[in-house]
Amino acid sequence: MDSPPSTAGSSRKPLRDPDREIGNILGYNLKLDPAIEMIRRSGARRVGLQIPEGLKRAAFAISRQITRETGAEVIISGDPCYGACDLDVSLCREVDLLFHLGHAELGECPSNAVFLEVEMIEDLRDVVGKASEKLKSGRVGVATTIQHVHKLEGALQVLRAHGIEGLLGPAGGRTLHPGQVLGCCYSSAKALDVDEYLFIGTGQFHPLGIALATGKRVVTADPATGEISEIDPDPMLRRRFGAIARAEDAKTFAVLISKKPGQKRMSLAQHIMDLGEAKGLEMFLVYLDNIEPDRLQNLGAEAAVSTACPRIALDDAAKFKIPVLTPPEFEVLVRERPWEPYRFDEIQ
Amino acid sequence: MDSPPSTAGSSRKPLRDPDREIGNILGYNLKLDPAIEMIRRSGARRVGLQIPEGLKRAAFAISRQITRETGAEVIISGDPCYGACDLDVSLCREVDLLFHLGHAELGECPSNAVFLEVEMIEDLRDVVGKASEKLKSGRVGVATTIQHVHKLEGALQVLRAHGIEGLLGPAGGRTLHPGQVLGCCYSSAKALDVDEYLFIGTGQFHPLGIALATGKRVVTADPATGEISEIDPDPMLRRRFGAIARAEDAKTFAVLISKKPGQKRMSLAQHIMDLGEAKGLEMFLVYLDNIEPDRLQNLGAEAAVSTACPRIALDDAAKFKIPVLTPPEFEVLVRERPWEPYRFDEIQ
Repeated sequence: MDSPPSTAGSSRKPLRDPDREIGNILGYNLKLDPAIEMIRRSGARRVGLQIPEGLKRAAFAISRQITRETGAEVIISGDPCYGACDLDVSLCREVDLLFHLGHAELGECPSNAVFLEVEMIEDLRDVVGKASEKLKSGRVGVATTIQHVHKLEGALQVLRAHGIEGLLGPAGGRTLHPGQVLGCCYSSAKALDVDEYLFIGTGQFHPLGIALATGKRVVTADPATGEISEIDPDPMLRRRFGAIARAEDAKTFAVLISKKPGQKRMSLAQHIMDLGEAKGLEMFLVYLDNIEPDRLQNLGAEAAVSTACPRIALDDAAKFKIPVLTPPEFEVLVRERPWEPYRFDEIQ
Repeated sequence: MDSPPSTAGSSRKPLRDPDREIGNILGYNLKLDPAIEMIRRSGARRVGLQIPEGLKRAAFAISRQITRETGAEVIISGDPCYGACDLDVSLCREVDLLFHLGHAELGECPSNAVFLEVEMIEDLRDVVGKASEKLKSGRVGVATTIQHVHKLEGALQVLRAHGIEGLLGPAGGRTLHPGQVLGCCYSSAKALDVDEYLFIGTGQFHPLGIALATGKRVVTADPATGEISEIDPDPMLRRRFGAIARAEDAKTFAVLISKKPGQKRMSLAQHIMDLGEAKGLEMFLVYLDNIEPDRLQNLGAEAAVSTACPRIALDDAAKFKIPVLTPPEFEVLVRERPWEPYRFDEIQ
């Protein structure tokens, strides 16, 4: 890290700028003050900024404010960012401090990486009230993603007002907050002894994950659209069964290992190699950053097993011309695991 | 690096396997013996393999042979690879030795990276004989890309037989062989005092680079197709003039810095930032690996300056919705450089 800068940069601009354009942006509450203070205190002159795709549009405005308030030079990470697992460690090496926005810290990280959680402004109470009518039990597990965890207490109050006890599973492993789930980690939900879950958030992937990881009923409440629905895991299970069936004909498998620090499962990849080779399959280890269809096509793989983010096999399946299996699905293929109960791929 | 392995792995298989499938593959002469020997001598147990796109299809066969002959585990780099500038340094950290095929070493590299040049089998003599009829001078500069450098002597002989003296510019800077050019480096051609060049190779980019970097006539001879043509730089110059004109309206520029070790020009990026800011433009540093259109679109940049591989601005222009300029073109835009003579972007 460079030596502390002169205060010229910060004294040029008032600490509180009345026309600060950051704050409520794109529906998120961005609190940059802790970052600004940290830059000033540490004397950082060059600062990295990594922002998930949904907030990328705010990158220039955030960069502008940091430079204006601290005089530090900002380098924006331009590659796609899908989670804390995807920390830009290469940029960490180029800067004094790197701010990763929108996700909670995950695993071991370079010491100059700072995670800034970003709270979604959307209120949860209306949608939770609506969802309570769809819940069948008086006692439900409640789960959400990082951008809503700060509003979970309010959600539990609304449930209580409807006579329902909402339970938050413990933080731990890859999650930092009670009730938080990740696409690759449902430990907080699995720790609860309940018959039903309420997932508060957007998209089908996380609630499907809860349903498959727990085998229980899941009602999902989307604060962005106000929609309430019950998760039906059957269509996905049928698609996954189909993918395994299509992989039956493959003789040559690419075993994909992610470069992303929080998605790299090297020893799992080796376990998959061993399993496949023991069954007479040709197995090849392939190390890559973003797993795109043309990468696999150029190699001529007939099928692949992804040890990276489970969403690649499960959510992006339609993009790939060859079947891409999760590690537990490959175990089903080589008869090392029964198809039922379906084992959802989670990262430990 | 691990301690030397037992010889069990290598003694299981004969040193010379009569049915070795590598050798002449995809039109290239692959000499794996040096790699096999190096793995045996060093005792490497885990080996990385990085292969350019045109040879990717051979990755599994190469991997299979290395494992069969040495017992070492192979990890294939699955990300696209466009040159020695694009060394997979992340994979270098995971393996004992990394073999980078198809390019000559470039700049400082991790000590466990080994560059294995790959020779194209295609003979140059026929096409050079045909090209000699199109050459106007008795003394021409001869240039080619890495996969043909080993056949340049034969090309010079053919030229001599046609009464033409062929000259090879010196190696140096980013090139290892006399007569070699890179998409980003034409120093060997520029060092020659000639009025005409013969480029032997495929594609329009390198001969266009020679024409623009030297301002001289360039005849190109493609050994793959047998086609001879004269390079006309005017269409590209018109497109580049158009890109600069379109960037005139932009107020917000992304200055792109590549993560790739041989394409990272941080201080040039800062020079571009300073130039733009001095002209009242909003400039933002953006650090990324593969520069794809959606990366820039998500950020909302109105124009970009790429300090990465010059091909991104020049060759991929049609992919981008916004104008992407090279650094010298940005200097033209901000009136720090005249449009003529057009300065081709090279990496020092």
